[in-house]
Amino acid sequence: MPVSDVKYRKIYNRQKDIVERRIEKVFGRLKPDSLYKPAAYIANSGGKRLRSFLVQISAAAVGGKFKDVYNSAVAIELFHNFTLVHDDIMDNADKRRGMPTLHVKYDLSAAVLAGDGLIAVAYDYLLKDCDGEDIDVVKDFTRAMIEVCEGQSLDKDLESAKKFAVDDYLVMINKKTAALLRASCEIGAKLGGGTKEEIKALSKYADNLGMAFQLQDDLLDILGSEDKFGKKPGGDLVEGKKTFLLITALERAKGENNKALQRMVKNNGIPRKEVKKYSAIFEELNVFDEARKEIKKYSQKAVKALKGLKDSEEKEILLWLVSELLGRSN
Amino acid sequence: MPVSDVKYRKIYNRQKDIVERRIEKVFGRLKPDSLYKPAAYIANSGGKRLRSFLVQISAAAVGGKFKDVYNSAVAIELFHNFTLVHDDIMDNADKRRGMPTLHVKYDLSAAVLAGDGLIAVAYDYLLKDCDGEDIDVVKDFTRAMIEVCEGQSLDKDLESAKKFAVDDYLVMINKKTAALLRASCEIGAKLGGGTKEEIKALSKYADNLGMAFQLQDDLLDILGSEDKFGKKPGGDLVEGKKTFLLITALERAKGENNKALQRMVKNNGIPRKEVKKYSAIFEELNVFDEARKEIKKYSQKAVKALKGLKDSEEKEILLWLVSELLGRSN
Repeated sequence: MPVSDVKYRKIYNRQKDIVERRIEKVFGRLKPDSLYKPAAYIANSGGKRLRSFLVQISAAAVGGKFKDVYNSAVAIELFHNFTLVHDDIMDNADKRRGMPTLHVKYDLSAAVLAGDGLIAVAYDYLLKDCDGEDIDVVKDFTRAMIEVCEGQSLDKDLESAKKFAVDDYLVMINKKTAALLRASCEIGAKLGGGTKEEIKALSKYADNLGMAFQLQDDLLDILGSEDKFGKKPGGDLVEGKKTFLLITALERAKGENNKALQRMVKNNGIPRKEVKKYSAIFEELNVFDEARKEIKKYSQKAVKALKGLKDSEEKEILLWLVSELLGRSN
Repeated sequence: MPVSDVKYRKIYNRQKDIVERRIEKVFGRLKPDSLYKPAAYIANSGGKRLRSFLVQISAAAVGGKFKDVYNSAVAIELFHNFTLVHDDIMDNADKRRGMPTLHVKYDLSAAVLAGDGLIAVAYDYLLKDCDGEDIDVVKDFTRAMIEVCEGQSLDKDLESAKKFAVDDYLVMINKKTAALLRASCEIGAKLGGGTKEEIKALSKYADNLGMAFQLQDDLLDILGSEDKFGKKPGGDLVEGKKTFLLITALERAKGENNKALQRMVKNNGIPRKEVKKYSAIFEELNVFDEARKEIKKYSQKAVKALKGLKDSEEKEILLWLVSELLGRSN
């Protein structure tokens, strides 16, 4: 591992801890407990805190300071957790980060309301970092919220769709996943005092990083090891989720393979014992390689977007982040 | 009816229609349908549009124009509808304004997401009316959202509480109901260019109007006629809701009356056929008169708060609104 990697990871972890401690303090003094304890339960349940790091590093990459955007960094994480709580309700998920989901641990009402409370408090924290001249930042945040809702809705549409193409999937993840990463970088860059060009560069970086990140997530769902990712491989196959992999496979498959895939779609998934079989079909159809190619394409675009920034350690960290997140896609 | 009443009602209805037509246009062009059709279903389902009128009349009362705050007026109504959708999920309600609630008409996922979409689009519309100097308006909106979530949570707490007092109830409705009326007037007054004193006066007006309005709602739930209010009287009794009336009755009741009320609390409500019996107990305990006294007290405070405004037709309309909404509490 190059020395710079160690250094950058240290910076990442240091800033992650700072945000972590701030998130812990958000709900401590707020009442009533019936609202804020469930909200704290999810908000304090860990995660990479990637989005809050993007806010901070984007601010620093354009000449701002980490500490000027701590509230916004917290806001972005609360936003992210709001989406997790409500998505888990909609997906009927019972586990998240190895723990019972909020509606399981508490109940449906508590989960709906905790999500609402999280996004409300998120706006509150964002506004702490905003003067009148920063009203654009609130617009970016709101735009992201609209897109994330649209993305989640498109994802639900895909579930029941009879006809679908790779492009539908890409539009969906652009809204559901990339939009919040984009907002993270834009908000950081704007609050950090970035120029129009710098903001645009970071927005493009995040957009492509987000796309690659989600495709990688789909790939690791099947190819990742349980030890490393904390969940059994193939969950998406079991649920019959229309990921990039499945849609690409359906476009390519013929004969028996096609029949098997159609069966999976019709039955909304497969028994867990068939995961290996379907994984072999994907392999045979070169679907994993296709995903790796796409991830590489988006990664390269993310890297290229950074040309719009002046050279700096922060720019190096943004580059490192691409390989850190996406360099291990198999 | 005085001539001015006719005139003011005409103005109210004219502005209501304008907002109505604008709300109809909000979701028309937005995609995907799976998100925005359910959102439009609730947002276009009628209602008094009181909150949007408060935004407009507050702006005009401090020298602004109705048309300068149309987007904010729409935003406040979308906010209100967001709370209705999510509250209906939490309350397991199956009817709203005589129509199936959103989660019944569509499903739970659609209702959670439509609520989220409504509040996101609400922020979007609010921001259309805001320059950098209006960032305080976004803070007011966010504060209201936090309070409304807290109020809903306190309401849920009351449901299962063993010990409770009238004050708990008053704190709850202040957040759940009055907070959004307060925000409506504050936002209107700020965007209308009001002075600090004018904003404070309108905020106080709305705060007291909101309290009176909710108490009146509790009263009409039992004493209102089905013809006039479109629902069978006594719904709160059937559900055993801890309203001002029930809590006051519990504080006063002795002997058989006390036993009957305790039974109602223990069973979380009563059979519909007992509504008349319980209504008679409330009457005997002078609970309705106590509520009327409170409504009068808050109404008078609302009226008094308006002394902070210059004389104008808009001020007259704000006064008219108090008697229009609250003058018929029996």
